[in-house]
Amino acid sequence: MGTIYGLGLGPGAADLMSVRADRLLRNARHVAFFRKKGKGGQARRIVDGMIPEGAVEFPMEYPVTTEIPLDDPRYNEILSSFYADCCAHLRALAEGGEDVVVLCEGDPFFYGSFMHIYARLKDVVPVEVVPAITGMSAAWTATGQPITWGDDVLTVLMGTLSEEDLLRHMQAADALVVMKLGRNLPKVRRALDAAGLTARAWLVEYAAMPGQSVTLLAEADCEKAPYFSIVIVHGQGRRP
Amino acid sequence: MGTIYGLGLGPGAADLMSVRADRLLRNARHVAFFRKKGKGGQARRIVDGMIPEGAVEFPMEYPVTTEIPLDDPRYNEILSSFYADCCAHLRALAEGGEDVVVLCEGDPFFYGSFMHIYARLKDVVPVEVVPAITGMSAAWTATGQPITWGDDVLTVLMGTLSEEDLLRHMQAADALVVMKLGRNLPKVRRALDAAGLTARAWLVEYAAMPGQSVTLLAEADCEKAPYFSIVIVHGQGRRP
Ligand SMILES: C[S@@+](CC[C@H](N)C(=O)[O-])C[C@H]1O[C@@H](n2cnc3c(N)ncnc32)[C@H](O)[C@@H]1O
Ligand SMILES: C[S@@+](CC[C@H](N)C(=O)[O-])C[C@H]1O[C@@H](n2cnc3c(N)ncnc32)[C@H](O)[C@@H]1O
Repeated sequence: MGTIYGLGLGPGAADLMSVRADRLLRNARHVAFFRKKGKGGQARRIVDGMIPEGAVEFPMEYPVTTEIPLDDPRYNEILSSFYADCCAHLRALAEGGEDVVVLCEGDPFFYGSFMHIYARLKDVVPVEVVPAITGMSAAWTATGQPITWGDDVLTVLMGTLSEEDLLRHMQAADALVVMKLGRNLPKVRRALDAAGLTARAWLVEYAAMPGQSVTLLAEADCEKAPYFSIVIVHGQGRRP
Repeated sequence: MGTIYGLGLGPGAADLMSVRADRLLRNARHVAFFRKKGKGGQARRIVDGMIPEGAVEFPMEYPVTTEIPLDDPRYNEILSSFYADCCAHLRALAEGGEDVVVLCEGDPFFYGSFMHIYARLKDVVPVEVVPAITGMSAAWTATGQPITWGDDVLTVLMGTLSEEDLLRHMQAADALVVMKLGRNLPKVRRALDAAGLTARAWLVEYAAMPGQSVTLLAEADCEKAPYFSIVIVHGQGRRP
């Protein structure tokens, strides 16, 4: 049986990939990756020029779901049958003795899509996960300030949470990371305002990717942020 | 002027280092690292056999501080003058035109000691930080389960916090990482018990290092854990 690798690629720059991921990729014969219809796919872009000649690529195209609300049961059904289809293909390859690398932006087990493949296949064929540098590590590195000191509490929030939940967690934390901004940015901004954190908040777009930008949130356009953007509030804990 | 690199090495396995860190290390002429007196130093151990011949090593030995409580002002003074001494040496090298890599376990800006060098030198000589895979990424990967799903809230806690603070944050989070365990493990365990989380908690020792072990906390010896150990409680959020 072949092995399916959930290959964490890190935040964007090809040389922030691990030596292990680099080696697995350069020897790959089957390379799968997620992308939105009509898009190139961020994970695929990271490895441009690195996939060996002759390797077979398998793009897994998300069904268009933007018009269905997240809490509509059809949303889960559509995604669920999409993942089942992807898994059927990957499983057939592995059962045929082929190794497959599945390209993952950032760290696969940290809010990644690979988890949905992993959960379905881990008891069926060999699956291995290669951890990687997260987008948030690249984001706080880009700000040029450590995220946490001493015994600071770090909380990671998704912009998809309600404004009340965002505020409550923001008030309890010392250091903050907020991901999945996009159209959620105005809501995130309101919660940061209410928590009195806006002056210390940074917006990092495309961390370690082409077009990286780092702005104080107070000086940023807060209507909308790109999908690959993160808000960072640094901790201010004990430091000798 | 030379550049001082805060070189994130990742959690332990040499091939989980980034391609960028690997390249900088293999071309290094000066290699600095922290260690405890009489110990080899974990960051130094990760790169065993990789430091180029002829490179000059500069071990920075922590003054013994275990007998001084964290909140004693002398603790801060001793550490502070230690960091000042290290920085004087690194600064002299950089001003003499030499690049220096400072080896950092995990990601340098995530609860790392390099931050204390960074804060003192960043406006004096060129300093660059190379982000890396954190110990917690290696730990959740070792458990074979994703740490977060959907819009789970992830909170990272230090075992040095008070039991009350630990409990309060544990109750508010969906997914948890607890670091700096050591002698704090019994206290962390009591807080997890009170939060009703012990049954879902994992103890990961030496993630991605020789001797890695993964145990359900309920089945672990909770008297004491090694310095390199992490408690993981996985989120259980939405999944299609
Ligand atoms: C589905 S999550 C995937 C996270 C990824 N597995 C990781 O380890 O970072 C997508 C979110 O991660 C954040 N993100 C990941 N990489 C990023 C990068 N290089 N720059 C900015 N944001 C990033 C964005 O907030 C984005 O909305
Ligand atoms: C001073 S912090 C440094 C964290 C590091 N900069 C990182 O990015 O993971 C030290 C704590 O990190 C955790 N840690 C770091 N690497 C680890 C590993 N490979 N295995 C287990 N624990 C680790 C332990 O809880 C340890 O007490």
